[in-house]
Amino acid sequence: MHMIVRDVLEAIHRLAPSYMKYDWDNEGLLCGTMTQPVTKILVALDPFPHVCREAKEKGADLLVTHHPLIFQAPKSVTDKDMTGKSILFLAANGIAAVNAHTNLDCCHGGVNDVLARVLGLAEITVPSPIGTDEGGHPYGLLRAGLTNKQPLSQFLDVVKERLGTPVLRYADGGRPVHRVAVGGGSCGDCYEEALEAGCDTLVTADVKYNQFWEAQTLGLNLIDAGHFYTENPVCRVLAESLRQKLPGVEILLSESHKDCMKFA
Amino acid sequence: MHMIVRDVLEAIHRLAPSYMKYDWDNEGLLCGTMTQPVTKILVALDPFPHVCREAKEKGADLLVTHHPLIFQAPKSVTDKDMTGKSILFLAANGIAAVNAHTNLDCCHGGVNDVLARVLGLAEITVPSPIGTDEGGHPYGLLRAGLTNKQPLSQFLDVVKERLGTPVLRYADGGRPVHRVAVGGGSCGDCYEEALEAGCDTLVTADVKYNQFWEAQTLGLNLIDAGHFYTENPVCRVLAESLRQKLPGVEILLSESHKDCMKFA
Amino acid sequence: MHMIVRDVLEAIHRLAPSYMKYDWDNEGLLCGTMTQPVTKILVALDPFPHVCREAKEKGADLLVTHHPLIFQAPKSVTDKDMTGKSILFLAANGIAAVNAHTNLDCCHGGVNDVLARVLGLAEITVPSPIGTDEGGHPYGLLRAGLTNKQPLSQFLDVVKERLGTPVLRYADGGRPVHRVAVGGGSCGDCYEEALEAGCDTLVTADVKYNQFWEAQTLGLNLIDAGHFYTENPVCRVLAESLRQKLPGVEILLSESHKDCMKFA
Amino acid sequence: MHMIVRDVLEAIHRLAPSYMKYDWDNEGLLCGTMTQPVTKILVALDPFPHVCREAKEKGADLLVTHHPLIFQAPKSVTDKDMTGKSILFLAANGIAAVNAHTNLDCCHGGVNDVLARVLGLAEITVPSPIGTDEGGHPYGLLRAGLTNKQPLSQFLDVVKERLGTPVLRYADGGRPVHRVAVGGGSCGDCYEEALEAGCDTLVTADVKYNQFWEAQTLGLNLIDAGHFYTENPVCRVLAESLRQKLPGVEILLSESHKDCMKFA
Amino acid sequence: MHMIVRDVLEAIHRLAPSYMKYDWDNEGLLCGTMTQPVTKILVALDPFPHVCREAKEKGADLLVTHHPLIFQAPKSVTDKDMTGKSILFLAANGIAAVNAHTNLDCCHGGVNDVLARVLGLAEITVPSPIGTDEGGHPYGLLRAGLTNKQPLSQFLDVVKERLGTPVLRYADGGRPVHRVAVGGGSCGDCYEEALEAGCDTLVTADVKYNQFWEAQTLGLNLIDAGHFYTENPVCRVLAESLRQKLPGVEILLSESHKDCMKFA
Amino acid sequence: MHMIVRDVLEAIHRLAPSYMKYDWDNEGLLCGTMTQPVTKILVALDPFPHVCREAKEKGADLLVTHHPLIFQAPKSVTDKDMTGKSILFLAANGIAAVNAHTNLDCCHGGVNDVLARVLGLAEITVPSPIGTDEGGHPYGLLRAGLTNKQPLSQFLDVVKERLGTPVLRYADGGRPVHRVAVGGGSCGDCYEEALEAGCDTLVTADVKYNQFWEAQTLGLNLIDAGHFYTENPVCRVLAESLRQKLPGVEILLSESHKDCMKFA
Repeated sequence: MHMIVRDVLEAIHRLAPSYMKYDWDNEGLLCGTMTQPVTKILVALDPFPHVCREAKEKGADLLVTHHPLIFQAPKSVTDKDMTGKSILFLAANGIAAVNAHTNLDCCHGGVNDVLARVLGLAEITVPSPIGTDEGGHPYGLLRAGLTNKQPLSQFLDVVKERLGTPVLRYADGGRPVHRVAVGGGSCGDCYEEALEAGCDTLVTADVKYNQFWEAQTLGLNLIDAGHFYTENPVCRVLAESLRQKLPGVEILLSESHKDCMKFA
Repeated sequence: MHMIVRDVLEAIHRLAPSYMKYDWDNEGLLCGTMTQPVTKILVALDPFPHVCREAKEKGADLLVTHHPLIFQAPKSVTDKDMTGKSILFLAANGIAAVNAHTNLDCCHGGVNDVLARVLGLAEITVPSPIGTDEGGHPYGLLRAGLTNKQPLSQFLDVVKERLGTPVLRYADGGRPVHRVAVGGGSCGDCYEEALEAGCDTLVTADVKYNQFWEAQTLGLNLIDAGHFYTENPVCRVLAESLRQKLPGVEILLSESHKDCMKFA
Repeated sequence: MHMIVRDVLEAIHRLAPSYMKYDWDNEGLLCGTMTQPVTKILVALDPFPHVCREAKEKGADLLVTHHPLIFQAPKSVTDKDMTGKSILFLAANGIAAVNAHTNLDCCHGGVNDVLARVLGLAEITVPSPIGTDEGGHPYGLLRAGLTNKQPLSQFLDVVKERLGTPVLRYADGGRPVHRVAVGGGSCGDCYEEALEAGCDTLVTADVKYNQFWEAQTLGLNLIDAGHFYTENPVCRVLAESLRQKLPGVEILLSESHKDCMKFA
Repeated sequence: MHMIVRDVLEAIHRLAPSYMKYDWDNEGLLCGTMTQPVTKILVALDPFPHVCREAKEKGADLLVTHHPLIFQAPKSVTDKDMTGKSILFLAANGIAAVNAHTNLDCCHGGVNDVLARVLGLAEITVPSPIGTDEGGHPYGLLRAGLTNKQPLSQFLDVVKERLGTPVLRYADGGRPVHRVAVGGGSCGDCYEEALEAGCDTLVTADVKYNQFWEAQTLGLNLIDAGHFYTENPVCRVLAESLRQKLPGVEILLSESHKDCMKFA
Repeated sequence: MHMIVRDVLEAIHRLAPSYMKYDWDNEGLLCGTMTQPVTKILVALDPFPHVCREAKEKGADLLVTHHPLIFQAPKSVTDKDMTGKSILFLAANGIAAVNAHTNLDCCHGGVNDVLARVLGLAEITVPSPIGTDEGGHPYGLLRAGLTNKQPLSQFLDVVKERLGTPVLRYADGGRPVHRVAVGGGSCGDCYEEALEAGCDTLVTADVKYNQFWEAQTLGLNLIDAGHFYTENPVCRVLAESLRQKLPGVEILLSESHKDCMKFA
Repeated sequence: MHMIVRDVLEAIHRLAPSYMKYDWDNEGLLCGTMTQPVTKILVALDPFPHVCREAKEKGADLLVTHHPLIFQAPKSVTDKDMTGKSILFLAANGIAAVNAHTNLDCCHGGVNDVLARVLGLAEITVPSPIGTDEGGHPYGLLRAGLTNKQPLSQFLDVVKERLGTPVLRYADGGRPVHRVAVGGGSCGDCYEEALEAGCDTLVTADVKYNQFWEAQTLGLNLIDAGHFYTENPVCRVLAESLRQKLPGVEILLSESHKDCMKFA
């Protein structure tokens, strides 16, 4: 059975339906042709230039990512920005690019369910659902779940060990950790949602100065565990899901993509 | 002297400075790399897919057009629309794309000066200038000029013969032709400007039903001479200008690009 | 039974209910008094000044049109634009003006059903409905239907002959004509809708340069058969509908209103 | 010398130049034809239906007012609102309508200079100018000036007597009256401007509940002397100005226009 | 049973649910702490500085008003405006502020039901409902009801006597009073709604010049009975409602708050 | 000489004039009364609740900060957010709050000049000025300057040691450090400005995932040295400036305010 890009996109949408994405978001086929044959797929968190090069080196004809190749719609496609570099390279090498972004964040079994499971949370719920799927299950960005009541310092060790983040940034809300909200990527502005859901701790990334202070003042532990480290775990799950749905297509996981952010 | 894309863009901007473009417009390097070497340029009105193919067939490494490759900033680059098709083809074949749009419409010696001259107008002015260039000369979209006073039917023959438009569409304002405003492309909504400039006739394209009626009611002859036919004459002038400014670069004029609109 | 303007408007709304109009549109009583007696109606496509004069000459006290007398809400009512001229004339002569615009485009039996029938299409559907009427039938702008499979050139002859358009403008999508979408007036930006509905051909008007190229590139035959010629057929149907609903009122069809756009 | 509407408009603009109006405002010829002959003008504060009738009864061919005939651009011209009633009547009777609104408020010798003079203020200034006229004089909405220091109760008597307002509404800011700001019509939101200009008292109209309280709290006497009574004095001045500039044209002042607001 | 602010707010919301407010409005706890104990409440129409002082003098720990303490969200909290003065005083004295604004206007038994009853109207309805409450009853701003058919002059006496307004402002629509719409506060732009509901008279406040004229022209009696006088009656009802729902809390009605607007 | 809040604000504005702030920003007196006497000032980066408590404990009557007490204009002043907590505390204790935000970032001798000097940069310029001060000097957000050419790792040590940031986050652009741009606080989106100014390195804070990647891809070293650590150095300079301008007023530097963000 010969696969084309459309088949892959349909497989992705069975996991992360298109209607679950936020209005401002971009997902689906963002570069290439819907009817292009697909024999080898590279799965990665981002469609950055070095990942595009890896796709070419490994002979992939399709790149499947979480983050969209195009976020701000571009007025030009040139090497003066990262998006232009990637599009020029992909097009020059006939590699298509497909992604699932906030639909993969929100869906059952997506970014945030994976993150909650990796952190060992139990009784996982969707604290502020934005809709209900065909099976009647709520979906939405955050997940909340229970861990054994423990001091914050102990939970920080758990996060570092499970996610592999070299250094965590955090604000201490002054409470032990028991009910934890998670939001992979940039959910630092969800501190009120986390509190309203009865959580004492929020794990996310890209947290800003004011968000740390607001959280600490309101008594919430706020942990920045890195955008890459909180979201990358979904790639393995996404790759496995595609392997099962697309027999005959080789599914590779990116080996070159690591976080570029270092600590000193 | 080895030329790169930046040199070509600077040559274009000496004719049609970037600051003359409208705010909503797009011009400059829209696809490729600023430092890419340039040995052969194809000049055409549009960066449509068949023109991109002609560029490849003729070995051009740069496509210079009037219309921008990207107008509405795209959320994806795929074959489901004309812009995506062109970008994918250009990037796949390493051909850069540069353009000058409303800056070429407005500048001295650009689209509308060429159109006015082709139509044989005398005492050409800029009836509604939007600025003044470094030399103190006004620039703007429309041009107005004089022709020998003649019946509309006679002037229609002139327009057809000079521009090569197979069939003209027009509304008869009931006055002989003497003072003519021209605006290549879609300037059908400039009928008030033309009247305020004392013109009896406006030559433009893409004219809509209401604009024909409004013009006729207000006593203006309004002639739709075709978007392609009113703007394409600038290509020869633009090519010649580049030839003089870029010695050593081969400058070709598109042979494949004709109007796709037919009459029956 | 003495009729007033309100009775006529209600008769129009039974054919083309007010809720079927687009949000940005204008319809209903746009000039005059709701309680004014009506004995003679002139039906025309447009409320342009020469049509208003015809109404006066024929002794009509009400003008019923498809296009609205007021589209862009005016800051003044003067003779410096066509709308002002018409309002001043109608008010000076005590003639009211009523219209049904996009509600008449979208309704069952309106502009586009008439257009599809005049072109001889079979199995007419509403390809992209925007709502459902009280009878549970979908309504919307476009209509799609089948014709005998034929070369484009043959279908162009059919269109010219049936609609009376002196000259057609078109782009050849490279496919024979079999499934045709129609949209009277300015529906040139509906080429994607037509393609998604499985059509090979779209008949509309006021088509712009880019729309011709986009259609041709995507393989759609796009025919500009004139705004007037694609919409005027509804007038006869509208007049007949009013005759049946308003016994005792004389219903005239405009004889003066022809397209002002000519070809050379 | 035969006058046309354009001559009258130019005469008005010599007093109240068009560039002095606010961006959102409407002024000039709002109904009729610029080249219509003018032999008799009715000057009034408003172009309301009963004033239009007075114009007809007195044989005026032009109505000159302060308030614009059209403020909110109308989607229809019918008898279901006051603007529609007036336009229908004027057009039916061939009477043109011209006005000067915020340009007459702001200009030297306009609404607010007249109001300040009627109230007997001395050393009149423009406290918050919005521009400078050709003569280098500032212009703007409010005027400020001095009166003999007096108790508020005494100044209320002056206002009533000079303007003829049957009943004043006011808030007592707790200070004697010495430096007074005036703004004819609806300037109740200018209380901060008045305070910053060092005024103890503001005379205007259409004052709202919150504005009374805000003024009283901040120590400003705020007097609502009626929209009609604060602006109508300009009509006599405007009429006189036209008489001098338009010899041979009969200039009448409205006798029918009184405030419709009564007190009980 | 010790009460806190949250208990009071819930009691208010049982009368005037939060979902009944308009989108642009502000209601609830606008100053202070939700868990602050409450033993004494001052109820008043407005949270103006003198009312805040009365609250302090009487030992109240909570101020309950109709109008919101914060309407336009402030960029600063200082004594240069009334809102800042009130917030600084309340915070300095530990007095919380809670309000119900358009939810109290719209709810069953709120501002406008009270106003209609005080004016003795019968068969009270909600002429233009904006929603339906849990009991299936419509809610909305205006109320309409019947009074004995009477001359306007007689009804004016009724309004003055029942509401205590020192002076009414009104426009005479030329019809006797029989079916009356009421809208406490600033509902002068509801004249069309009142007419469409079949009313001959509208009682409201803060009426502007144009609204008086529009109403008179369209045949509606429009009465401005004062913002304070049309809304203040709800305070007594609100206080009584809180007394019943909050046993053990002392509920005082403001004695200092009178209208600051005077007549001369 | 007795000082009031206005005197302090004028002293601040001599250093950081109000006109240098961005349009969206907030600065000046944000809580309290302009005429309140001032004897003791606490200077701190932020007006957070613990800083307000420190002000009270130390007997300060005025809090002077860089960040504004109010950023998003609040619809309520309660303890459910940090801003509300601070306002309630300040007002309850009669402490005024004044700040200089982007005007202090942009001015000569402000946040970014101090940051550049602390990092030992030489030949400091304003790479993208937004205006010119009275002395003809450009002002703007960023500063750029030279350091001895050195490996990135060495410069990271300098930054940590000079600013005291416990842990830096950074992306390695692959170039040695020589020309450095600095922007205290959240200037992560200025990477293009830094590159256009010829810089190889940008020091700022609150950097997001995409900004690290974009910088690295374009060859810029991007260092997040902490919002607190990059901006707090200005406080000492601001305090010293006030000491010189306000003799007789005691100026304290906050001792309680440390970054709440920790690393693990």
